[in-house]
Amino acid sequence: MQMLIEKMFLPAFANPTLELLHDGAVLAVNGARLAFSTDSFVVSPLFFPGGDIGSLAVHGTVNDLAMCGARPLALSMGFILEEGLPMEELWRVVQSIQQAAQAVGVPIATGDTKVVDRGKGDGIFINTTGIGLIPAGVEISPRRAQPGDVVLISGAIAVHGIAIMSVREGLEFETALESDSAPLHELVAQILEAGQDRIHVLRDPTRGGVASALNEIAAGARVGIRLEESRIPIWEEVRGACEILGLDPLYVANEGKCLAIVAPDVAEEVLAAMREHPLGREAAIIGQVVAEHPGKVFLRSRIGGMRVVDMLSGEQLPRIC
Amino acid sequence: MQMLIEKMFLPAFANPTLELLHDGAVLAVNGARLAFSTDSFVVSPLFFPGGDIGSLAVHGTVNDLAMCGARPLALSMGFILEEGLPMEELWRVVQSIQQAAQAVGVPIATGDTKVVDRGKGDGIFINTTGIGLIPAGVEISPRRAQPGDVVLISGAIAVHGIAIMSVREGLEFETALESDSAPLHELVAQILEAGQDRIHVLRDPTRGGVASALNEIAAGARVGIRLEESRIPIWEEVRGACEILGLDPLYVANEGKCLAIVAPDVAEEVLAAMREHPLGREAAIIGQVVAEHPGKVFLRSRIGGMRVVDMLSGEQLPRIC
Ligand SMILES: Nc1ncnc2c1ncn2[C@@H]1O[C@H](COP(=O)(O)OP(=O)(O)OP(=O)(O)O)[C@@H](O)[C@H]1O
Ligand SMILES: Nc1ncnc2c1ncn2[C@@H]1O[C@H](COP(=O)(O)OP(=O)(O)OP(=O)(O)O)[C@@H](O)[C@H]1O
Ligand SMILES: [Mg+2]
Ligand SMILES: [Mg+2]
Ligand SMILES: [Mg+2]
Ligand SMILES: [Mg+2]
Ligand SMILES: [Mg+2]
Ligand SMILES: [Mg+2]
Repeated sequence: MQMLIEKMFLPAFANPTLELLHDGAVLAVNGARLAFSTDSFVVSPLFFPGGDIGSLAVHGTVNDLAMCGARPLALSMGFILEEGLPMEELWRVVQSIQQAAQAVGVPIATGDTKVVDRGKGDGIFINTTGIGLIPAGVEISPRRAQPGDVVLISGAIAVHGIAIMSVREGLEFETALESDSAPLHELVAQILEAGQDRIHVLRDPTRGGVASALNEIAAGARVGIRLEESRIPIWEEVRGACEILGLDPLYVANEGKCLAIVAPDVAEEVLAAMREHPLGREAAIIGQVVAEHPGKVFLRSRIGGMRVVDMLSGEQLPRIC
Repeated sequence: MQMLIEKMFLPAFANPTLELLHDGAVLAVNGARLAFSTDSFVVSPLFFPGGDIGSLAVHGTVNDLAMCGARPLALSMGFILEEGLPMEELWRVVQSIQQAAQAVGVPIATGDTKVVDRGKGDGIFINTTGIGLIPAGVEISPRRAQPGDVVLISGAIAVHGIAIMSVREGLEFETALESDSAPLHELVAQILEAGQDRIHVLRDPTRGGVASALNEIAAGARVGIRLEESRIPIWEEVRGACEILGLDPLYVANEGKCLAIVAPDVAEEVLAAMREHPLGREAAIIGQVVAEHPGKVFLRSRIGGMRVVDMLSGEQLPRIC
């Protein structure tokens, strides 16, 4: 997938905006800066603990806009429905979309609906594309990571991916493990208020998890990133599930978490701002940007050893979002 | 589908922009008016005479932006790929997208790629969402159709739908019948230059054809529309194919045609402007807006009888775009 993007789509569609590989494009229109971002959602199952394909589709695109530093203005909604889909399921998804969009305060401004024959789709696929407005003074770009910067995460990792995999694999937990799917635009607004233009990079570590997100940033900005394993928040039951499933939590998807790479002088304030928000209570400083080994991410383990955290560690989990 | 939109999506996502059922949303941002439109493409086969899913996906969204009176600024590109898709096919589609976007002069600013397991998709589905800028003075809205207005079409109808159905059904023509898939932004710019704010409605008669498009407009603007069958341009071979396939050409999809509803005093100039453009050589005045029978479309047949052209005439052709 990463290969497809780098070897096929980027060279073919070549343009300066796309090349940044940001969570969304930043467009200058009439003196305003707009963020523009798209995601298709093919999650299986459609309904899972803590959400469904509808709420996920709203949160996913709202979050990619937020990672550009933007406030969401409008969403589009494109459905691909499989013939034979029970109307009751569609209705539940539509209501979930409506509730999620209303909670964010973003209108579904336009839409599209296509139907494919049975066996040529899988219930419901959804594309959401969003437009957001970037406030003046905000300057987020994956290229702005620089040596000395501090790396923060807004909460415990790997929750969404494990919630989905648990349903698929029939794992049982003592307490129900729910997806962390949530809209991050307000958390981001608080981060930006605390750090202003000293917030350099934001990224939601979705498919491929924290490891892939930081590798992409390290590669794009030509910097190294050093993580402290002991500081990375992870719930015990998630760690346990990862062991059972043979997954490294650093590569497991999050849908309500945000990485922030910020200038060192604002790191503590940003951390405090994150923790003040309900979605950032478990926020932590987890590493820093370094000049050595540009393009690489390192992890200092609990027992002190250093290892490279590669871009690809086996297959990505399919249909997790 | 129409039912789903009216009974489920509109009430659930209720907001003033969506309710217009325009080809795209019109958003006011920082003093500019932006058009915002989305379509997913699931056409089968992926490659057909005159185009493929890639060029169609670019043209389709460029055209919906154009129907809002907008010049395209940026497109997003969301792929849903079925596992096992030959890379050679994907590459052909990607090149076709690139060529179509370059011909329009619109960048692919952001994208997304999801892969679904074999048998859960069908080769390639594409969502394109676009942003466009509406020039000052342009005021296109499906609600602006008013009695006395003249209805024009930019060329011969039903070509795209018949090109696709012919491949599927194995029909042979003396000359190869190709889809009319084409980007209409320049044709629209010429129409707007000729008619300015006296261009009231624009609409690309895609799925459901001219009949569905005009019914939607008649219903939204609470006006009647009267068509003259003898004036509606249609190629002989398309008419013949429709007869063989048992289709009414008024309901067959177009992907490179534009309906314009304009004030009577500019109708001739708009017609001339259309005909000057390579994509509008066969443009014609095909009817007018009337006060009687609001919400209904009538056709005066070649032999003089009048019949109602309903919203729904049987099933829509599946996977035509
Ligand atoms: N088909 C494509 N065409 C053009 N660019 C693409 C395509 N697919 C992805 N990209 C670009 O690659 C980068 C990474 O995309 P990706 O979808 O992984 O990001 P994301 O949306 O933040 O993550 P996720 O999809 O897991 O939520 C983005 O900059 C995106 O614009
Ligand atoms: N799932 C949906 N949610 C919200 N609005 C929708 C949805 N599907 C369609 N609509 C709205 O219904 C109207 C008609 O949509 P439709 O897709 O038929 O138009 P179009 O894109 O111009 O045609 P085509 O898809 O054939 O090219 C539009 O205003 C669109 O925004
Ligand atoms: Mg993202
Ligand atoms: Mg995303
Ligand atoms: Mg559509
Ligand atoms: Mg349209
Ligand atoms: Mg369309
Ligand atoms: Mg994406």
